Amino acid sequence: MAAAAPPPSPSPAPSAIGEDLIPFSQHQIFSRIRLATITDVPHIHKLIHQMAVFEKLTHLCSATESSLATTLFPPNSPPPFTSFTVFLLEVSKNPFNPISQNTPNFTPVLKTVNLDLPINDTEEEVFRTIDDDVVVAGFVLFFPNYSTFLAKPGFYIEDIFVRECYRRKGFGKILLSAVAAQAAKMGYGRVEWVVLDWNVNAIKFYEEMGAEIMQEWKVCRLTGDALQAFASVNI
Amino acid sequence: MAAAAPPPSPSPAPSAIGEDLIPFSQHQIFSRIRLATITDVPHIHKLIHQMAVFEKLTHLCSATESSLATTLFPPNSPPPFTSFTVFLLEVSKNPFNPISQNTPNFTPVLKTVNLDLPINDTEEEVFRTIDDDVVVAGFVLFFPNYSTFLAKPGFYIEDIFVRECYRRKGFGKILLSAVAAQAAKMGYGRVEWVVLDWNVNAIKFYEEMGAEIMQEWKVCRLTGDALQAFASVNI
Repeated sequence: MAAAAPPPSPSPAPSAIGEDLIPFSQHQIFSRIRLATITDVPHIHKLIHQMAVFEKLTHLCSATESSLATTLFPPNSPPPFTSFTVFLLEVSKNPFNPISQNTPNFTPVLKTVNLDLPINDTEEEVFRTIDDDVVVAGFVLFFPNYSTFLAKPGFYIEDIFVRECYRRKGFGKILLSAVAAQAAKMGYGRVEWVVLDWNVNAIKFYEEMGAEIMQEWKVCRLTGDALQAFASVNI
Repeated sequence: MAAAAPPPSPSPAPSAIGEDLIPFSQHQIFSRIRLATITDVPHIHKLIHQMAVFEKLTHLCSATESSLATTLFPPNSPPPFTSFTVFLLEVSKNPFNPISQNTPNFTPVLKTVNLDLPINDTEEEVFRTIDDDVVVAGFVLFFPNYSTFLAKPGFYIEDIFVRECYRRKGFGKILLSAVAAQAAKMGYGRVEWVVLDWNVNAIKFYEEMGAEIMQEWKVCRLTGDALQAFASVNI
C-alpha cells in the first residue's frame, strides 16, 4: 500500500506548473530507505543542520562532519541496529533497482508515492547522491533501548527529519514504519521517541498511528558543567 | 566525599534497636558498585520485581530470569557501556577488597557510608552473594543514547532502584553519580532519564543535583498490536 493517498479518480487533473493536462500517474516519485554509511555523512550533516534551523536551535547544534563520522561510524563499527543507526530516505524520478545492501536482517524499503503535483526541489544539487538521479530527502536516527519489565530491547528514535519540499506526502510515515518494521522483525517490544507538547499536529499523527503519549513522564537531562560536577560526587 | 551526611558532631548517639549507646562511627556500611554479570541475574530479577511492586505495575512486568539472561547477557556480549549495562550496588559490614573486575575503562566504586542507625535488612538471605558478608542492595540499568546536535553519545538510565531498607542514605546518589562519572570519563555529552511528574521529591532531588527537567517533551510509545500494525504500513 502506498503511504500517499491514491488519486480519488483515474481522470486526468491539471498540473500546477504550467504544463498541459497530465494524468496523476505521471506525478510519481520513487523512494528508498536504506542504511546510511560513512560516505553519507556530508548529507546527514546538512540534514541535521536543517533540522536545527527548523527547530530554531542552531545555537545548540555543534555537530560537524568529522564528529558525526567518528561517533556514528567508528572504526570496527558494531553491526547495524545494535548501536546508533541511520536510515536514509532517498527519492528518484526513476524506479530504484531492488539491490540489497548485503546487510543481514535488513532489506531496503522501496515505495512508489503518487503525487497531486510534482515536487520542486530547489536543493536537488546539494543533496544529489552518486546515483545521478537519486536525491537524499530525509533521515531517521535510532538505537536500541531496553525495557526491564518486558526484558526486551526496543528502539528509541532520536531524530526523524524530512526536507521541507518532501513533507506532507507520507515520507515521515514511511520512515517511522521502517523502524517499527525492523523492531517487529527483531522481536523487539517497543518503539519510543519524544515530541514537543505544543506540536499538536505531530501528537495527533502519532496517536492515529497507535502510539501512546505518556502524559506523566518528564525527561531529565544532566549535561555540561552539571554533569562534570555530579560525576565527581563519588570521588 | 561521603554521599551520606557525616554526623553533626562526634558525640555518641543512641541506637534504635535496643543496644547500648554506640558511637556513630560504629554504624558504618561499606558499599561497592560493580558491573553485573550473568551470574547476578537471579538478584537482578528480584530487584526488578520489587521495583514493579513499588510502582504498582506488577501486571506489566513479564521479565523472567531466563529472558533477562538472554537479553542482558547474550552470547558474545558486546563490551560494557556499548549496550545495555547494569551496575550492581552491594553492601557489606566489612570493607571490600579493592579488586578490579578486569574491565577496561571501569574500576568498581567503593564508598563508606556513615549511618545514624544500623540497617535491619530482613531480606539479607535472599540477596546474599557468594561473598558471605556481601548483600545486593540495588541496581541501575543504562545504555548509550545519542545526541545529533552534539554528535556525541550519552547514557540513558532506564531504571534505578535501591531496596527499601537502604533508601534515604545516599545510595541512589552514589549509583547515579557512578553513571555520570562513567559518561564524563568516556567524553559523553549527557545523562538522561525520565521521572513521573507527581514524584515531586525525586524531581527536587534531580534539580538539586543539576539536572534539567524538560517540561515541554512528551514520551511517545508504540508497542504491542499497534507496533505490529504500524510495522506493516510499508508492506
